[in-house]
Amino acid sequence: MFKRIPKKAAAGRAAPARTPAAAHDDTEITALNLPPEKLSSEVQAYFSKCEEKLGFVPNVLKAYAFDMPKLSAFVAMYNDLMLAPSGLSKLEREMIAVVVSSHNKCYYCLVAHGAAVRALSGDPPLGEVIAMNYRAAWLSPRERAMLDFAVKLTAQPANVEDGDRERLRRAGFSDRDIWDVAVIAGFFNMSNRIASATDMRPNRVYHGQAR
Amino acid sequence: MFKRIPKKAAAGRAAPARTPAAAHDDTEITALNLPPEKLSSEVQAYFSKCEEKLGFVPNVLKAYAFDMPKLSAFVAMYNDLMLAPSGLSKLEREMIAVVVSSHNKCYYCLVAHGAAVRALSGDPPLGEVIAMNYRAAWLSPRERAMLDFAVKLTAQPANVEDGDRERLRRAGFSDRDIWDVAVIAGFFNMSNRIASATDMRPNRVYHGQAR
Amino acid sequence: MFKRIPKKAAAGRAAPARTPAAAHDDTEITALNLPPEKLSSEVQAYFSKCEEKLGFVPNVLKAYAFDMPKLSAFVAMYNDLMLAPSGLSKLEREMIAVVVSSHNKCYYCLVAHGAAVRALSGDPPLGEVIAMNYRAAWLSPRERAMLDFAVKLTAQPANVEDGDRERLRRAGFSDRDIWDVAVIAGFFNMSNRIASATDMRPNRVYHGQAR
Amino acid sequence: MFKRIPKKAAAGRAAPARTPAAAHDDTEITALNLPPEKLSSEVQAYFSKCEEKLGFVPNVLKAYAFDMPKLSAFVAMYNDLMLAPSGLSKLEREMIAVVVSSHNKCYYCLVAHGAAVRALSGDPPLGEVIAMNYRAAWLSPRERAMLDFAVKLTAQPANVEDGDRERLRRAGFSDRDIWDVAVIAGFFNMSNRIASATDMRPNRVYHGQAR
Amino acid sequence: MFKRIPKKAAAGRAAPARTPAAAHDDTEITALNLPPEKLSSEVQAYFSKCEEKLGFVPNVLKAYAFDMPKLSAFVAMYNDLMLAPSGLSKLEREMIAVVVSSHNKCYYCLVAHGAAVRALSGDPPLGEVIAMNYRAAWLSPRERAMLDFAVKLTAQPANVEDGDRERLRRAGFSDRDIWDVAVIAGFFNMSNRIASATDMRPNRVYHGQAR
Amino acid sequence: MFKRIPKKAAAGRAAPARTPAAAHDDTEITALNLPPEKLSSEVQAYFSKCEEKLGFVPNVLKAYAFDMPKLSAFVAMYNDLMLAPSGLSKLEREMIAVVVSSHNKCYYCLVAHGAAVRALSGDPPLGEVIAMNYRAAWLSPRERAMLDFAVKLTAQPANVEDGDRERLRRAGFSDRDIWDVAVIAGFFNMSNRIASATDMRPNRVYHGQAR
Repeated sequence: MFKRIPKKAAAGRAAPARTPAAAHDDTEITALNLPPEKLSSEVQAYFSKCEEKLGFVPNVLKAYAFDMPKLSAFVAMYNDLMLAPSGLSKLEREMIAVVVSSHNKCYYCLVAHGAAVRALSGDPPLGEVIAMNYRAAWLSPRERAMLDFAVKLTAQPANVEDGDRERLRRAGFSDRDIWDVAVIAGFFNMSNRIASATDMRPNRVYHGQAR
Repeated sequence: MFKRIPKKAAAGRAAPARTPAAAHDDTEITALNLPPEKLSSEVQAYFSKCEEKLGFVPNVLKAYAFDMPKLSAFVAMYNDLMLAPSGLSKLEREMIAVVVSSHNKCYYCLVAHGAAVRALSGDPPLGEVIAMNYRAAWLSPRERAMLDFAVKLTAQPANVEDGDRERLRRAGFSDRDIWDVAVIAGFFNMSNRIASATDMRPNRVYHGQAR
Repeated sequence: MFKRIPKKAAAGRAAPARTPAAAHDDTEITALNLPPEKLSSEVQAYFSKCEEKLGFVPNVLKAYAFDMPKLSAFVAMYNDLMLAPSGLSKLEREMIAVVVSSHNKCYYCLVAHGAAVRALSGDPPLGEVIAMNYRAAWLSPRERAMLDFAVKLTAQPANVEDGDRERLRRAGFSDRDIWDVAVIAGFFNMSNRIASATDMRPNRVYHGQAR
Repeated sequence: MFKRIPKKAAAGRAAPARTPAAAHDDTEITALNLPPEKLSSEVQAYFSKCEEKLGFVPNVLKAYAFDMPKLSAFVAMYNDLMLAPSGLSKLEREMIAVVVSSHNKCYYCLVAHGAAVRALSGDPPLGEVIAMNYRAAWLSPRERAMLDFAVKLTAQPANVEDGDRERLRRAGFSDRDIWDVAVIAGFFNMSNRIASATDMRPNRVYHGQAR
Repeated sequence: MFKRIPKKAAAGRAAPARTPAAAHDDTEITALNLPPEKLSSEVQAYFSKCEEKLGFVPNVLKAYAFDMPKLSAFVAMYNDLMLAPSGLSKLEREMIAVVVSSHNKCYYCLVAHGAAVRALSGDPPLGEVIAMNYRAAWLSPRERAMLDFAVKLTAQPANVEDGDRERLRRAGFSDRDIWDVAVIAGFFNMSNRIASATDMRPNRVYHGQAR
Repeated sequence: MFKRIPKKAAAGRAAPARTPAAAHDDTEITALNLPPEKLSSEVQAYFSKCEEKLGFVPNVLKAYAFDMPKLSAFVAMYNDLMLAPSGLSKLEREMIAVVVSSHNKCYYCLVAHGAAVRALSGDPPLGEVIAMNYRAAWLSPRERAMLDFAVKLTAQPANVEDGDRERLRRAGFSDRDIWDVAVIAGFFNMSNRIASATDMRPNRVYHGQAR
């Protein structure tokens, strides 16, 4: 996990012996040398629950395992945003995650949350089109308004004004829902940058999920 | 194929009854109403060959079928660039197609040529990472130089200068190879725009290929 | 705090009777109508500590007070990043907050964290120049490398690569420090967007601090 | 044509002995060393027709002459787009060529197609203003809609949506015309990049045409 | 004033002994070595008037003092734009100066003209918010239209068209006023670049003014 | 000169009766209704000198003629920058004017100063290539460094730093020369915006000069 093979040296040129693209993704999770500390019992239990429910521990959690308080704070915020009750469905929240990650071209988050959109929607091409260009997707007016807001907030946050909030309200979002759209979009603007800053690699298992 | 259901009306909100994202992609290929003319015998033969070899006729060809000379000119250029002998392998050419399409966020080309990268490389995650952010991929120096050139040529063509060509030469590309990199990158800058201008939809079969 | 006067109507034209720019900032904290819920005892204690130490409760905390779990998760992450032990000094962390907020033109965060830079450095013009254009500031090579990384991660996260991490290492940052630079920059990319999405207003008291 | 003098060394500083800017443009057509192969009889005939009609063979054709199939495919597509029957006049097609090339700052195409706009319109300043900033030109609503579409498709292809096509329809364009606008704009996005990638030089004769 | 200490060397790392950010700003006004020539009597008188009225000579004037005709031309244009009779109030003119300088991230002009907005408005936070993100400010419709025009003219001058001028007229600006908005915005696009090109430093006294 | 025909109405569609593009350029100089005031004797003399030397009065001066002090200040600054003694040749100064205007896509300045580059250099294609893409021009290292600085200062003024000034010094520019490069580039960033804000039209005579 922590002794990184330099990325360019890992592969010869496009030839039969090419190293598979994700070959090291589960063993060299980031480009930083940050060995995990002893897991707290709380985190240990959470990791076991991940194994049980998902079949694996997401690499972002392993990356954070060098410091228990940081890991706990991240998990608490993540779970509140993506899993707690909200006016937004879980699929809608994952769609926000994907359009933000698409704007930021974040490999880790596109792989992990693209899989979630495929799984939650039961519609694999939906995950693809949201990751590639959400403007090409067949969306409800509500979904389109939500994703337009998330993308504007990502691309040009300083230009968000009353009119943008009004458009969400007209599409049926409450002020509480607007908060959730904003904070989820904000959260993935943070996560994308953590992943890019550390070259974080997604678990290989995501690639084949819900195809 | 030609009577288009308005995109937004096609789907309710995120709910059990959501229309699958690619539901209409093989029947309403573009947003333009351009019925096919009678296929010339040459084109008829080519379409049969596609059916035989690929199992289907790529939607871009069906979209072009309203005008035989335009279709023939497109096919001739495409086949020369992507299939004729070249110092670039077929995989390398498809990688260029995908990075250019990723920059331009072209749904059609990312789906179709992402599938080609997966199939030609035998490495599904390679297709994903090239489509999402090629800078996160494990690439040989030759591949990296080639894709950097293609992306710079796409993003800021007016800034390409002698130094950019020199970098390709130092990575082992001949002047003939540089021509091919340039024209393939150029071709997908054209194709991406034709697809985006017409909202061209990729064949549904691509989504599941080579996963 | 929650019944918002429309922004444009609040002021006449530039005339003697102009409403002061920050007149409503402490009473109409955001553009969303999200009344606070009953504070948990833990939060109540935290707010009291803020009053005691700072003399006021930062408006971002009041904005979050409609939902105790969200507020707690935010506070936990904030305090870990900005106050817990780190290889980065508190001033360095605030400098990152300000350059990120400057890139994103976030009024709330520039006011609040600009004040922090002025106070922690004892050098008011430092807070100004970092907020306006950090490239015009007299910085140590370590500071410059840190802020360059934070700004690149903010502006073009997908382009951050091994060379960027290496530059930080050469400037004396450990891998643990790099994590902290990345996550603090990421955190303010989130916070800036929450503030912009909700038109969050900074406490008026910040403006006069440490001038 | 193929032994290139390095660009920077070719000129002294701004002084009486300055080498004229286009001095080598007809002898060193590109920065790539790609000697022409023996012209096919078909191409030979086409070049003769160019000499006869235009008085010269456009340098892009000479640049392509290292490979007959590539040259033929390019000519077939070019002639279909720019010369075959279409709902767009030849002048309108050249105007699209020029606005796309202006966005991409392509020296070759601005010189060659700027001359075409001057000649076809009989209005030299029209060629200038279209090349410099088409928004400053006196255009019919139809022309303006057409060029706005071409420029948006060039600058931000992923953002083209139903509303953009509708605007063209409202300006009187048929779906077939929209196809032509799109493909011509796409074609020059390709050509501009081929020219920039190879530093292709326009025939000197263009500069003085139709002034 | 003219022997510049290299910027990076001037400061140690964030430590007790850090050199104050503005320490050299009044002695090393620019990064260029351009000693003042003998002041003309006219300029001498003008500098005396500055000392008398402002208490100091603005550093931009000292920077220009190496050449009397240049200094005189700059002062004549500046005084005409910012002080002569106009349909724009002096505060409005300073607000334009600040939004343009904010877009261009000009340290000198943000410090000097931010102070002017604070002083003329008697409202220190107004100077802050205009410098940070004018879209977050409580503005009259007239002010907003004026600043939107100035920012569009700064960011994308080639896109300014009849509609933009019409919006100013509808907000109550005469054609003469539009000229003034345009030229003041233009002037600070010049001044910002002169300041950035020379690393011009603002007088330290500005930082504390009108807080 | 002052009663403007709306731009779009002025032309039919591309048809035999198309109004020539520059038809109104010498009679409707700007989109603002600003009638000239009585010329001062000094300005009258200057206009006569223009007629005598150039054969016409540049439209920018006519546009400014509604206010004598503004016109005088503009002329004083212009003449100092473009005509007074300087380490930069007049051709070099005009090249700066053109690359800045090219970046800003300013129709007026590209026409007027493109003509000046053609005339001063005696090399018409030089004017073309500088206006279209100076990176495609054969330039001396000195010219290239100068134009690179001017373009960076135009496009991203906040990023200009010591290294940029050093590059000019290494190319042989004195600190005084650097000042001139900076201020000329700044001046055209102002002029481009005045022209774009007012839709200023260049004298028709420029189009045919020095071809």
